[in-house]
Amino acid sequence: MAMPKGPQVFPRTEYLRRLAAVKAEMKQRDIDVLMVTSPANITYLSGYTSKSSYVPQGLLVSQREEEPTFFTRHMDGPAAMHQMFIDSGRVIGYPESLIANPDKDGFDAAIDFLQDTGFANAGVGLETKFVSAQTVEKFKARMPKATIVDFGTAVHWIRGVKSDLEIALMREAAANADAGMLRAKEVIRPGTKEAEAAAEIIGALVRGVNGKPGTDLGGFFLCASPRSATAHIRWSEDVFRQGSQINLEFGGVRHGYTSALMRTFSIGKPSDQLRRVHEGEVAGLEAALAAVKPGAVCGDVAAAFNTTLKKHGFEKTSRCGYAIGIDWTEPTASLKEGDRTVLKPNMTFHLMLGNWIDEDFGYVISETFRVTETGAETFSKLPREVFVL
Amino acid sequence: MAMPKGPQVFPRTEYLRRLAAVKAEMKQRDIDVLMVTSPANITYLSGYTSKSSYVPQGLLVSQREEEPTFFTRHMDGPAAMHQMFIDSGRVIGYPESLIANPDKDGFDAAIDFLQDTGFANAGVGLETKFVSAQTVEKFKARMPKATIVDFGTAVHWIRGVKSDLEIALMREAAANADAGMLRAKEVIRPGTKEAEAAAEIIGALVRGVNGKPGTDLGGFFLCASPRSATAHIRWSEDVFRQGSQINLEFGGVRHGYTSALMRTFSIGKPSDQLRRVHEGEVAGLEAALAAVKPGAVCGDVAAAFNTTLKKHGFEKTSRCGYAIGIDWTEPTASLKEGDRTVLKPNMTFHLMLGNWIDEDFGYVISETFRVTETGAETFSKLPREVFVL
Repeated sequence: MAMPKGPQVFPRTEYLRRLAAVKAEMKQRDIDVLMVTSPANITYLSGYTSKSSYVPQGLLVSQREEEPTFFTRHMDGPAAMHQMFIDSGRVIGYPESLIANPDKDGFDAAIDFLQDTGFANAGVGLETKFVSAQTVEKFKARMPKATIVDFGTAVHWIRGVKSDLEIALMREAAANADAGMLRAKEVIRPGTKEAEAAAEIIGALVRGVNGKPGTDLGGFFLCASPRSATAHIRWSEDVFRQGSQINLEFGGVRHGYTSALMRTFSIGKPSDQLRRVHEGEVAGLEAALAAVKPGAVCGDVAAAFNTTLKKHGFEKTSRCGYAIGIDWTEPTASLKEGDRTVLKPNMTFHLMLGNWIDEDFGYVISETFRVTETGAETFSKLPREVFVL
Repeated sequence: MAMPKGPQVFPRTEYLRRLAAVKAEMKQRDIDVLMVTSPANITYLSGYTSKSSYVPQGLLVSQREEEPTFFTRHMDGPAAMHQMFIDSGRVIGYPESLIANPDKDGFDAAIDFLQDTGFANAGVGLETKFVSAQTVEKFKARMPKATIVDFGTAVHWIRGVKSDLEIALMREAAANADAGMLRAKEVIRPGTKEAEAAAEIIGALVRGVNGKPGTDLGGFFLCASPRSATAHIRWSEDVFRQGSQINLEFGGVRHGYTSALMRTFSIGKPSDQLRRVHEGEVAGLEAALAAVKPGAVCGDVAAAFNTTLKKHGFEKTSRCGYAIGIDWTEPTASLKEGDRTVLKPNMTFHLMLGNWIDEDFGYVISETFRVTETGAETFSKLPREVFVL
């Protein structure tokens, strides 16, 4: 019996539209077949969210065929058949003998397939930022007559403008992130272990709200005093104390789509420094959102934030945010001064205003938003407060 | 004020011993300075577990100096100062202007540093499996007089034999994994959402037991009917049903060190197929463990399993396991026939007997174990049962 298709997150037409955009870009670059290896790009073009990128895998997008073909480890084939919109016959599980084999790996199977199906002399696209140096060398050595072309972040750029269906998932993800933050308000108390709070918050993110559970574990960072200057630690073995400050960053995830959220908590009255930074950052946040509209560029949004924050006597050295979608960050547009990316409706960003001011003090706040026809829609419904416990 | 050092997971002497082993291997390969980029290797050589590998970072191990130097994004510097055993002055945060910069990235800062500190003509080691093709090209282009040498998986191989301190962490991690599996027995019920069970199980993994919380989210897979043939999906939006089979795989994590565990659950009486596979697999598991002893090779363990399983009328095409430690899989020794890696005391493996038999049926069971002076010590205390609910 065959693995049944699971419920499909998007209709087939949505995937074909995405593939058409990729194929148009391939044509521009004289690419006959593209091997997509960025896991988020594979999700985008197929619906696949299973976690198999720890071994070689690639989605082959060919100019000659409507649907792509997925190369994956044999044991990961059934998940692909279940989740991907493509015909299950297009899922090719390479043999387990290629795992932990010093001489060959799954990319050799993909190269064999390309040679056997007439691509030996073709233009072959690779995402060289998302495959190892060893793999690119292998393609060059084993396909000497092919023209290997770097596809860069072209698929990521195509992902930038979301469909309304994608936006709907990001709204659901944001509702789950809100639920996580509200749970944090309930469970962060003096004497409670950071890990205990993390367990409760993560539980809320996975359960979700409105009958829409979280579908994955996204990034999760709980940075509490004396570690408020750290940005990306999970949590520590410490307990919260009276006077502790807690910086939280995490995302809700729906079928790969992430809405990120950051808020700062204070057990007891916030310090003067925290209060002043918060005032400046919220003013900056509102100025940044007011600068969002189709036709403006990313740099305008950052400039609005930076100018306002400076008036409050602070600076933020890191960028003010980035494009967001599947698996959190999209490595494309940045909300930073000088970024000339033109805003279009349904582009989505994480306006990430975390500010790690010195080695012993940091502050976080953020909003995930979409560009609308006239401005910005933030997905979170939470107030822009320091949550005082 | 400076970021304080956090509690150190290992004494300084432990890190210096590890570094000495790496430097000896560097010498064999005429490498003066090695840029370690595999996140697990960075953890091994410094104690760092913060999640900053989404942007360029590298731990520079030099023959000329006792302690390594860490290159990381400016905002990630404080976490490194807090967690790493090295002097905080050796944490170099590269400027935020190198993030989302189309012309330069953090590796340019590392290259500048190498050139400024006398390594322009040196032997420079890179882990080419753990940096992108673009980055290796950059090193070659910007350091034309240096000799770029691939360090392969040499650090991973050095990690293979654990110290008793590392083993102690893996036992703690295993106790947490057991707690997760016991929670699964309590919460998996007909009509319950898979996500609800996942939230509870993950909560147990994070809380931990014996005052030793989980310190990270490891891999987590819940593959339930009709998806028991899938290996690596998180969970679905479905509910459990009477007659459902549920395959669980996850790990406990303590300061990066992972103990993995797999067990199969059945709501109601197991099917005949499940019962027969289970009997064969457990017999194979016991035969495999009986084959473990110093001086035997990995292939012997796999052969013992495969021979026994075959007697029960089944086969497993994927390998029987792999070296495990920091961040789960070590890409080194495999429990597969033909692997000639000689077993030594305190090597640790995930005896991973997941068997995805056809497109609609899979079964899982596993043990994480260490090689002792005379045999094998499994870390989990759970029975080797199909848990019938």
